[in-house]
Amino acid sequence: MSLRFAERAPDAHGHQLLIGRLLDSVLQTAPDQEIVYRDRVRLTYRSFHDRLGRLANTLGAAGAGEGTVVAVMDWDSHRYLECYFAVPMMGAVIQTVNVRLPPAQVLDTLDRAEAEILLVHRDFLPLLAAMGPLPERVRAFVLLEDERTGAPIPSGFLGEYEALLAKAAPEHAFGEFDENAIATTFFTSGTTGRPKAVQFSHRQIVLHTLAALGPWGNSPGTRTFGIADVYMPLTPMFHVHAWGMPYVATLLGVKQVYPGRYEPDTILKLHQTEGVTFSHCVPTVLGMVLEAAARSGADLAGWLMVIGGAPLPPTLFRAGRAKGMELVVGYGMSETAPTLTISRPLPGVAEETALLSAGMPVPLVALRVVDEHGQTVPADDSTRGELVVRAPWLTQAYAGDAAASEALWRGGWLHTGDVATQDRFGTLRIRDRLRDVIKSGGEWLCSTSIEHVLLELDGVAEVAVVGVPHPRWGERPVAVVVAKPGLSVSTEAANALLDQEIAAGRLSRYARLDRVDVVEALPRTSVGKIDKKLLRAARAATAETAASV
Amino acid sequence: MSLRFAERAPDAHGHQLLIGRLLDSVLQTAPDQEIVYRDRVRLTYRSFHDRLGRLANTLGAAGAGEGTVVAVMDWDSHRYLECYFAVPMMGAVIQTVNVRLPPAQVLDTLDRAEAEILLVHRDFLPLLAAMGPLPERVRAFVLLEDERTGAPIPSGFLGEYEALLAKAAPEHAFGEFDENAIATTFFTSGTTGRPKAVQFSHRQIVLHTLAALGPWGNSPGTRTFGIADVYMPLTPMFHVHAWGMPYVATLLGVKQVYPGRYEPDTILKLHQTEGVTFSHCVPTVLGMVLEAAARSGADLAGWLMVIGGAPLPPTLFRAGRAKGMELVVGYGMSETAPTLTISRPLPGVAEETALLSAGMPVPLVALRVVDEHGQTVPADDSTRGELVVRAPWLTQAYAGDAAASEALWRGGWLHTGDVATQDRFGTLRIRDRLRDVIKSGGEWLCSTSIEHVLLELDGVAEVAVVGVPHPRWGERPVAVVVAKPGLSVSTEAANALLDQEIAAGRLSRYARLDRVDVVEALPRTSVGKIDKKLLRAARAATAETAASV
Repeated sequence: MSLRFAERAPDAHGHQLLIGRLLDSVLQTAPDQEIVYRDRVRLTYRSFHDRLGRLANTLGAAGAGEGTVVAVMDWDSHRYLECYFAVPMMGAVIQTVNVRLPPAQVLDTLDRAEAEILLVHRDFLPLLAAMGPLPERVRAFVLLEDERTGAPIPSGFLGEYEALLAKAAPEHAFGEFDENAIATTFFTSGTTGRPKAVQFSHRQIVLHTLAALGPWGNSPGTRTFGIADVYMPLTPMFHVHAWGMPYVATLLGVKQVYPGRYEPDTILKLHQTEGVTFSHCVPTVLGMVLEAAARSGADLAGWLMVIGGAPLPPTLFRAGRAKGMELVVGYGMSETAPTLTISRPLPGVAEETALLSAGMPVPLVALRVVDEHGQTVPADDSTRGELVVRAPWLTQAYAGDAAASEALWRGGWLHTGDVATQDRFGTLRIRDRLRDVIKSGGEWLCSTSIEHVLLELDGVAEVAVVGVPHPRWGERPVAVVVAKPGLSVSTEAANALLDQEIAAGRLSRYARLDRVDVVEALPRTSVGKIDKKLLRAARAATAETAASV
Repeated sequence: MSLRFAERAPDAHGHQLLIGRLLDSVLQTAPDQEIVYRDRVRLTYRSFHDRLGRLANTLGAAGAGEGTVVAVMDWDSHRYLECYFAVPMMGAVIQTVNVRLPPAQVLDTLDRAEAEILLVHRDFLPLLAAMGPLPERVRAFVLLEDERTGAPIPSGFLGEYEALLAKAAPEHAFGEFDENAIATTFFTSGTTGRPKAVQFSHRQIVLHTLAALGPWGNSPGTRTFGIADVYMPLTPMFHVHAWGMPYVATLLGVKQVYPGRYEPDTILKLHQTEGVTFSHCVPTVLGMVLEAAARSGADLAGWLMVIGGAPLPPTLFRAGRAKGMELVVGYGMSETAPTLTISRPLPGVAEETALLSAGMPVPLVALRVVDEHGQTVPADDSTRGELVVRAPWLTQAYAGDAAASEALWRGGWLHTGDVATQDRFGTLRIRDRLRDVIKSGGEWLCSTSIEHVLLELDGVAEVAVVGVPHPRWGERPVAVVVAKPGLSVSTEAANALLDQEIAAGRLSRYARLDRVDVVEALPRTSVGKIDKKLLRAARAATAETAASV
């Protein structure tokens, strides 16, 4: 025998998992729900849908069709959400441009993505100018701006977005096509070299959207994300589709609020006036919000935030909880669309321990923590290994980079490059980036754990711990510290605090620092992560003279 | 240009939506969660997974492989759940046999499904015997029973399920294959003739499972179904995969309780001892549970039940709410796997009005209410039309019945055969089965609405209203009533009550009954629905003499 396949009536609808299908139910269930842009625009889902037709007709007139790459350079806006839907619904590909990269790299990403149409916010015209001549392939430009200021529309532009939409017809026959067609493309942040292109198909995004609904069950003490929520992204929409949450929010039919450029006071004002209840961001943005709220006295109680992108320091978690926020941790990466896991309260486990872990895989995610031979390590919460994953929404390759693609997928599992542990209940803890692990005296030191301890030290505002080559120990940890204004941080004080953790068995004795370097600021990548590669490189040169342990 | 497709690393995992993938995350997140069968068996998800391997090895030894149809005749049990997973995970097809059909029809369904292996509970051995000779194709039998009673294993059987599993190895290499392979098959209940075969692929079941998680957002006043719940099905597992909820429950990793044969006292006892919080059933079973609870004084507070399969009478809804139950209505059918919509509280709408509607479509469901020309009728909550749907989990054909398949899918939409209205908020109300609508004086009368009024009448225990041919009016409504013990029901009393509703504008004046027929019992189909076809047929013959209006 062999597999059986069903008969099919001639007219049976052969349903493809297309991004447009995410709208099928919500146009019935929430047609009057709002989509808000700052204090400037209020749409309903019904008018949003109408505008998708207008946008598609506008782009079509500009030459867009199946396979055309349409690049967007905007702050978080209703316009961006419209592009998230209308561009892929045409069979075209949306490139979400990382506007924080240097001009030459932005140019490089537009070129490699084969962008033909560019939607550019007025704020990024200087960036566009700084790129120099664009590839000939780029043949149409649309200006995005919040209000007509009287400033001229640059020459060569088709016009301004709102004016173009107003002129276009709302009816557009979005077709049906193969769910494996590419819907989106963007570039990884390039902490390990030239940005790499990742791509996601309609099918992958639809499945990611459905699975992201999965973990929000009614665990006691956990809020769910649902129709009574008001959603505001605080992760840039160029960064992994704002973690895919605009698609989830739209599928649920919740009210959505787009904050434009991230300004703490605007964010807090929108939170209050629009009644925002659900957001997601990196720890840095959480810190920024908490700081602004401390200044203004804003009430943050009940605001649920998913934190990801970098480890959430316990101090920041406690500060958020003290303001009544609900904080959970998500884990993923650009290559994984991004959601892989999310933390939740666990019966019999301290809140902080449960919520600060990377949590549990969402539906359809298979994960393993493996040693260098690909063997699963014991699930004892302490044996470290690399986290490898499978799920239906993982990038299948870095476009145009066969060697990196092969490395990413060696052995049939996607290699995250993160060092993790797992306990017998499945709780995952991310211990470090594989390349940030410090190997000293034959032991793996977790730089994040050392950093979290050092953040408790008086005078430490920010800290990054990196490994510096050492002739005897292989590597030794060095802490690069930004001190609080008027305070200093000494190697002795830092090691005294670490010694307590070592004595308590919570850190390896190799975690004692070689030294503390006090600097004015830490270098960051375009998505706001600390650039440890730079820190290491700067210190490798002088490492030969490092003090003995 | 044409659609773009992504490059793929040679080892990239080409993820197929297979039923086995539903277990990937839960074996990490809930390995110690329980699966309980009555007071007899307690498994964990870990041991459940182990048993799937044993079952696959047992079935493999019996000749099962890709494409083999394995038929199951059991009460709701952990064994059935194991077959829900292990059989399709082998690439084989599970036939969930409707054991309430007459023996000749059961035989017919086994024959048409091409079943080769039969798993039979001892309780159904008499049914098996009554079928007479089985098709030659059926070549292996496994006995299911709750305890070894010493009764002999029938000749020709391979053995008893538990004994066979105990002998088998737990390791089984479940392969990966095309997600479009058929996973399950069963037969519609045949209210309109010979049962029709429907089939669902792995992809369809996985997508149905993910979408069924979708509507459980945190609407104010709505409980979600999540990891803190304890699940017990009260819809037979042969009936549309128990509405797909065992797959949802397993994906979530909740504790599951299987009640075996439905006995009210056992159900109430399991509800209490196991802490059941979530179930689903037809109105008849809800009535049975409420009756048993009234007798025993059992506490039902907080028990969330999804009611479907037939309209939920307001009287029954109120009785459940009075006991503290949380009741919502789901809508779907065998051909739709089944979930299409679910009701939820709506701001500004009376609880009963919102929850007794068919509610809102779940994610990825597109629905329309259309007239006989396929045009969408106004969404004014009163214009009736046929409900037609699209979703990724709809049966693509009735196997071996091209004419019925074409009719089901005419115009590219699945025709539900249900008459519905929709309001401007998207709320769907099912008004009647298309074939149960009474067309009188050029108006469509809703038999369900008349029935719900008559249930308020003293003396009425059960009622079905059907249309009877009439030379002048086309059809006229007749109520077939089961009276409460010692009470009687007159046509005059019934019409007096209906007159009040007519005067209030809630019913058409054509709703006045031609007559009331008092009977001892209403005929029911194998899944417990009132068989209106029979009622109509019996009355059509005598209709010529019907009284005038």
